[in-house]
Order: sequence, then C-alpha cells, then structure tokens
Amino acid sequence: MNQKNQIITLTTDFGSSDPYVAEMKGVILGIRPETKIVDITHQVEKFDIKKAGYILATASSYFPEKTIHVVVVDPGVGTERRVILVQTENSYLIGPDNGVLSLAAKNQGVKHIYSIENSKFMRSEVSHTFHGRDIFAPAAAYLAKGTPPSKLGVRLSRMRTPNFAKTTKRKNVLIGEVIYVDSFGNIVTNLNKKDLKEMGIKKKVNLKINNNELQLKIGKAYAEVEIGQPLGIIGSHKFLEVSLNQGNASKRFQTKVGDTVAISHPEN
Amino acid sequence: MNQKNQIITLTTDFGSSDPYVAEMKGVILGIRPETKIVDITHQVEKFDIKKAGYILATASSYFPEKTIHVVVVDPGVGTERRVILVQTENSYLIGPDNGVLSLAAKNQGVKHIYSIENSKFMRSEVSHTFHGRDIFAPAAAYLAKGTPPSKLGVRLSRMRTPNFAKTTKRKNVLIGEVIYVDSFGNIVTNLNKKDLKEMGIKKKVNLKINNNELQLKIGKAYAEVEIGQPLGIIGSHKFLEVSLNQGNASKRFQTKVGDTVAISHPEN
Amino acid sequence: MNQKNQIITLTTDFGSSDPYVAEMKGVILGIRPETKIVDITHQVEKFDIKKAGYILATASSYFPEKTIHVVVVDPGVGTERRVILVQTENSYLIGPDNGVLSLAAKNQGVKHIYSIENSKFMRSEVSHTFHGRDIFAPAAAYLAKGTPPSKLGVRLSRMRTPNFAKTTKRKNVLIGEVIYVDSFGNIVTNLNKKDLKEMGIKKKVNLKINNNELQLKIGKAYAEVEIGQPLGIIGSHKFLEVSLNQGNASKRFQTKVGDTVAISHPEN
Repeated sequence: MNQKNQIITLTTDFGSSDPYVAEMKGVILGIRPETKIVDITHQVEKFDIKKAGYILATASSYFPEKTIHVVVVDPGVGTERRVILVQTENSYLIGPDNGVLSLAAKNQGVKHIYSIENSKFMRSEVSHTFHGRDIFAPAAAYLAKGTPPSKLGVRLSRMRTPNFAKTTKRKNVLIGEVIYVDSFGNIVTNLNKKDLKEMGIKKKVNLKINNNELQLKIGKAYAEVEIGQPLGIIGSHKFLEVSLNQGNASKRFQTKVGDTVAISHPEN
Repeated sequence: MNQKNQIITLTTDFGSSDPYVAEMKGVILGIRPETKIVDITHQVEKFDIKKAGYILATASSYFPEKTIHVVVVDPGVGTERRVILVQTENSYLIGPDNGVLSLAAKNQGVKHIYSIENSKFMRSEVSHTFHGRDIFAPAAAYLAKGTPPSKLGVRLSRMRTPNFAKTTKRKNVLIGEVIYVDSFGNIVTNLNKKDLKEMGIKKKVNLKINNNELQLKIGKAYAEVEIGQPLGIIGSHKFLEVSLNQGNASKRFQTKVGDTVAISHPEN
Repeated sequence: MNQKNQIITLTTDFGSSDPYVAEMKGVILGIRPETKIVDITHQVEKFDIKKAGYILATASSYFPEKTIHVVVVDPGVGTERRVILVQTENSYLIGPDNGVLSLAAKNQGVKHIYSIENSKFMRSEVSHTFHGRDIFAPAAAYLAKGTPPSKLGVRLSRMRTPNFAKTTKRKNVLIGEVIYVDSFGNIVTNLNKKDLKEMGIKKKVNLKINNNELQLKIGKAYAEVEIGQPLGIIGSHKFLEVSLNQGNASKRFQTKVGDTVAISHPEN
C-alpha cells in the first residue's frame, strides 16, 4: 500500500447536512494528508444495510485496484458487533460486521477477513456512538499509509451475511423481488441474465409487478421504445431492470424495494 | 495537457443517492489517478438540458484554463445522438450533442468540435444506458492524460444548439423570460445590461412578472433596500436579477423558469 | 503555510443545486491548483448563522493543524460588515464578521483577528452579492499559497459574537435549550458535562423537553436501552444529547433548535 494516489471511498447514511462526514475526512487527512477521498453516497436511508450493501457492490466495481472502501451504516454501533476489514481480490472493505460489506465482498472474492481491534490505530478517545470517525476512518488511513492489515486486528474465519433476496420458481413462473430503485425510477430486480436465458426468454417477457401485468420488450437502449413506454434491460450487473424511456418506472408501477416481481415466457 | 493538477468537473442530473456519480469518478481515477475531480452539481432536474447548460456556462467561467467539463444530462442516451468534445478558447467540454454544452461553448468561444468515436478510449464494454461512465468519463481522463482531441474522434463543423430564451420589444416594453431561479429564490432573467442601457433605464425599472407589477430599484447590494424588499441587480453574467433582501423573490412573485418578464422605463 | 497538502474547507448555506460552491472551488484552484478542498456542508438553512457556527466548531476540531476553514453564511453581504480572518491556536477561519466564526474561534483559542481589506488578494471584479467567491475564496487560496495574514488586511482587536444559548438555574432545575438537531434526530442541548456533575447527576436525570417529562437513563452507547427507547449521552463536545436507540428523538419529542430543556436530579 501507501500508493501516491491511494483512494478511500465513503458510503454512509449520514446525509449531507451534519458535520459527520467532514469529521471522518478530517481524521483521515490528519493521518495521511495526501489521500484522495471520494464520496460514493451519504444518502442511504438511515440504517438501510441492504441498500448500502447494494450501492457499495455496484460502485466499487468501477474503482481501481487497492481502493479502500469505508461504509458507515451502523445501527449497532456501541454493541458487541465487530468492526471488520475485508481484503478482497482487488480492494479493501471496512465497516461494521452487520452484513453491509458482504455483497461487495462476495462479488470481488474474499481473501482475508480481519476484526479491527488494535487501539493503536484508532483515535485516542473512542466514542460509543461514532465508530466511523473513531475506528473506521483511522483504520482506513493507516492502511492507506502502509500498515499491514494483520496489524490492525486478528483474522476471522467468517463475516455476517444478510439474507439476500432469493428467487423461486413455480411451474413456468420465476418470482423474485425489487432490490433497488434509482432516482430516475429505474427498477432493479434480482432476476438475472442467466435466469432469463434458462427460461428461453429473449426479446419479450411477461412481467407482473404489483398489480400490473404487461408484456415487456427486452432491449439495450431506452430509445428502443417510444417516450414514456416501458423497456426491460439487462443492467451492468446482469440483473433485469424495468425502465420507462424518459419516464419514471417506479412511479408508473408504484414500486418499491422488496416488492415481488414475477416473469414468465411470453408464449406461455 | 497532462498538467499536474488537471481538473475534471462533473455536472449531471443523477442526484446524490445513487452510485452513478461515484462510478464515473472511479473510471476517471482508474485511467488517470492524479486527476482533481470537482462536482459542479448533480441536482439538475432530470433531463433539464437548458438548466444544466446555464449552470455549466456560469460555473465554468470561474475555473482555470484547460479545465475539462463533463456534463451528463442525456435523455437520448443510446440513440444516434453524438457524443462531442468542444475545445473552446479556454477549456474543454464533453457531453451529449443535445445542446447542453452550447451556451458555455458560445460564451467561451468555440475552437474545434469533435465527435467522440474512438472505442480505444472508451470502457471495453459500453452500455447503451450510461455513456457518462462508459464514454464521457474515459474520454475526459484520456484527454487529461495527454491524448490529443483529434485521437478521440473526428472533427465536426457544428453542434446542436437549443433555442435560447429570446427577448422581444413591443413599443416601449421589453419582454423576456426567467432563465434560472436559484435556491435563495433569486430570479435570473434573460434581460441584460445592454438592453437596459438602450432603454435609458438606470436606477429604477417598471417590472411586470406574472401578475405582479412593481417599480423596482436597481442597485448593487441587497442591503440597499429594507429586509424583505425587492431589488434589481445586474449579476455576474450581465443579466437582470430580481431579489429580496434576505428573502425569497421566487416565492414572493410565484415565479419559475420560463415565466414571462416585462420591463419598461419608469417614466413611461 | 504553503504546505503540500494544505486543506481548505467550505461551509455554506448554498445548497447543492446552484453553481455557487463550484465557482468558489474554481477560484481557489485557479490561484493555488494543488489545494485539497473539503466540503463540511452546504445544507445550512439559509442565513442560519448559529447553526453554521455550531457545525464549524464541531467539524473543525477533527481537522489537521493549519487547515483553513471558510464559511459563507452571509445575510449582510454588501453592507458595511467586515470580512475577517481569525488565526487561532491551530487553524485559520475566514468569513463574514457576523458571529459565524466565533464559537469555533473561542473553542480553538484566538491568536489574531484581521479585517480582510487588501484588494490585491481579491478577484479583480468584486460583486456586492457574492463575497464568498470574490473575497473569501481568494483570501483562503492566497493564505494557502503562503501569503502572511498581515498582508491580507489590518489587525482588529475584536470580532462580533452572537448571544450563545445560556443556561439558567432555578432552585434545583437547570434550564437550557436545544442547540442542534442532527439528521438522525439526535437532540443536542447546551447543558454540559460539568453542569450535570455539579448537580450530582450520574446515571439518570429527570428531563423536561417541550411537554414531555421523562426519567432519562444516561449512558454511552445507544444499545444500552431497547430499540426505540430514549437515552442521554454526553457527546464529543461534552454536551448532553438526547437520542433514541435506532429511532428519531427529535420526532418523538417534537423538538427543534431553540426549544427549552430542563433537567433535575431524579431524586428531587
């Protein structure tokens, strides 16, 4: 480590009106002044571990190798929950051991997991309410500075993993759920490319989402349909997304994260 | 190019809750790690090309020479619309050829326009839904790294330009429109300093905005009027702005972008 | 000054949709390209000097020595109010002389106060509506570049200080007020650790806040109480804070900044 342009990213549920994000940046820059800090987002809904986990997994795949990603969505701060550092095949993930790191870790491939415990690499006074500033930020900064992960704490054999949304199949219908809705209203489902292929679905799919049933064209660019019309797209992460060309699919179908989606072959 | 402290700015309609802005930053820093990335704003209303164009034109005039400005307000992503690089007298502009760059380009003086087409300087897998990440960001990063514009694509003779708000004169009344409302409620019109001068307007002006008619003092500092009172100011870009001292003019006059404003000499 | 990784922080009431913050960054980077700029927040309520002052005082304490903190919450821009540079024991503060810097200055210890007046270190054209861009930003950049504070303007003997929230004692009841509510709903009061100690309050306190009366447990970690239950915590700045474990105390007790809080010993 200790690369000249070492990046630390931050993903939190702090919003942008409080001083908390800046406090973390001040701590990092105090320890390693030349660090490049990049915000992923601070607008995760309070305590929404799954959403933060999805955003981290998505965004982190576009960052250079050895980037250090810090996540603070931490409803259990001050309890016995661990603080962990996950060294993956291409990056480092730091956060509470509450499952928020597990999707990114799984996607990138886990090499080692450490429990961050060495108070030498924490702020001298550690609060019980803001480990992001007092433990995660210094750990990230010392790691950026060249401290080996093994000095920060002890090896763990496993980390906590939340129940990811699962898909189930009944007869010819594949049932999954909405895992993310972006600010454009694009609906990301957990039904993936492979699922569709196995069902022989290519250009069209029968979709049921909430009380809406429709035959959805599957394409690559929003403009393949008229303005305001729905389109299915296999996104960067191979999941089926439902969009409207220049419109808001989430509003049209009154959809939110956790809603059930069901697909079947258009000729059934 | 390839200056040590090369800046790339980002202006988008992505908001700040999704991972998309961070994905662009990750791509840029992967190609040229030492780049300074500055956010102009990501809060442009979805698909509002004119507003993004105004913000870019305004903000870009305060950045150092050779800054690279990237704009992603791109309702036509995935269609045949071009991606362009505009080399102006003092900076570089990258974005979709939908008019979003044209006001800044016109203000700065266009030197060359290129259509970005060389896939060598794009991400290896280019989606049809996010050219900001897969085409614009890498183009900006390679340009920052020293790649000449002519390698990124072919020269174009022209770019698309939206219809900017025009002013019209009827008898002694000059009619224009509201082109921007800021978060303080300051109302920016397209009536400029020269227009007022030609009408002999100096210290006062008769203003009609929506159903409000008032005689507006023209000054330089909000505090020239009592708290809550309206004042006209010629802003940094030579446009007439309507403000309230420590108040919100847009709320008071229930004004939004596109509303008609009319002015006349106070002695008519 | 002129340290390699010199930091300038920005705290404003500009929001994140207008070009104003970016204009300041462009000006700073034009004068001193290698500066590290860190946003504290731009979401201070318009003209809320006390809130900005609290956020600055809180966040600045986590930044390295010699950091330059710029604040633009400036309802009196264009009036005779001064622009000041406060050199404290460990940092520099730049902003309007309206009290916004005084809490941070007091916490850090004032060394010198300067009135920024030397137009050589301002933008060539200074507006009467945006001194943040035309005076504060260049002053900060020149200071970062090594210009001595004494060149920027003249020494002052004092700065303006707002009336900070005071506490009063009636019989056995200590009365104070709410000075900050964060986005999690944590309620920060101006009752401090010393006050509680003097009253012999240790593990519990009787609290009256608006129309709510409760016996509040005082602890260190939210998880010491059940989910949704209230807890009192002495925060990083030694003030009593009222929180709910994984809930929003401000909503529960319908509390806002300025509300009265009263505490007494639980055995009275």
